[in-house]
Amino acid sequence: MSFNGFPSKLLENAVNEFSSLPGIGRKTAFRLVMNLLRRNSEEVRRFGETLIKLHEEIHYCKICHNISDNEICNICSDKNRDRTMICVVESIQDVLAIENTRQFKGLYHVLGGIISPIDGIGPADLKFDTLEEKVKTGGIIEVILALSTTMEGDTTNYYLYRRLGKYDVRITTLARGVAIGDELEYTDEITLGRSIMNRTPFITPV
Amino acid sequence: MSFNGFPSKLLENAVNEFSSLPGIGRKTAFRLVMNLLRRNSEEVRRFGETLIKLHEEIHYCKICHNISDNEICNICSDKNRDRTMICVVESIQDVLAIENTRQFKGLYHVLGGIISPIDGIGPADLKFDTLEEKVKTGGIIEVILALSTTMEGDTTNYYLYRRLGKYDVRITTLARGVAIGDELEYTDEITLGRSIMNRTPFITPV
Repeated sequence: MSFNGFPSKLLENAVNEFSSLPGIGRKTAFRLVMNLLRRNSEEVRRFGETLIKLHEEIHYCKICHNISDNEICNICSDKNRDRTMICVVESIQDVLAIENTRQFKGLYHVLGGIISPIDGIGPADLKFDTLEEKVKTGGIIEVILALSTTMEGDTTNYYLYRRLGKYDVRITTLARGVAIGDELEYTDEITLGRSIMNRTPFITPV
Repeated sequence: MSFNGFPSKLLENAVNEFSSLPGIGRKTAFRLVMNLLRRNSEEVRRFGETLIKLHEEIHYCKICHNISDNEICNICSDKNRDRTMICVVESIQDVLAIENTRQFKGLYHVLGGIISPIDGIGPADLKFDTLEEKVKTGGIIEVILALSTTMEGDTTNYYLYRRLGKYDVRITTLARGVAIGDELEYTDEITLGRSIMNRTPFITPV
């Protein structure tokens, strides 16, 4: 069914707002609005106000460009983190993903995207200058490039390598290989090939 | 990836609100919030305010229980509609779906659901009394039961038939049969069986 001839302008406006979100079609938007209508007024008011507040009060960390409630984010202001390591990521989602592994104790640097000529994103659109500044200032021992394993990610890695290579800093990338839980049969051949080339000594589980 | 350890309480609140909606998981909610963050402040404010306004200013039509900007909806107040026919539907979505066919010129009656003992919905939870009142008052020639072709829909049809059958009114239901564009091979046997039983004279296209 299509949604012409809405019985209410208010309803139509709300459906339009939801369907402006990525991946939300008009049918889904309608379903979401109907769900809100069944709730009590206070809940819906809180929903609306949360969105407004989010946009008006949120900060981006001045150091790593991660999202934050303050000028400096929790990670950058945490005295227990290793300040000699910077993990370079594309987005805020990636910071969360890596934080959830609990395997990294250094700091982050959020680029805000990766170089993608097709989408018109060049080096000038990303937070490269502040990263170079940190490396130039010194005190950084290792920069970990944790970008997507796509052509755009590889391009960005190469660009960063060229730009940061002249400083006295170790540049590393995430290990590539067969994902844990994957069956070899279904692993793509490039990944499988690389994981044979970069094989590691077998470690007996403790 | 899971989403523990949000870098911002404001972000977490917004993600929580979106993921309280049906069919929206935490990952999708996060993606939606990130999309809002990339917009300008005015757009997000409008989004939030639209939701609040929707809930506080919306009406339900006093006659048909459809959603409306006023006390009486556009359809019920339209002098050109046939006031002798009432189409009984489950929800507001169904009104829109039927309106979009442009095949019905009568009035509607939105039940607000169908009888479903499993979900704890009985006759008392639905708008049966106001429907009976309309039929009792007179002036109605036909009541079309346009409910889902499910067990719950059939139960509700039967209930309505028992309740309205005593009045001088014609009670009809939607035609059941093979949907237009369907291949017989993939049509379920109950539908196919019924459509043979209820076959109609062949009409040559004009």
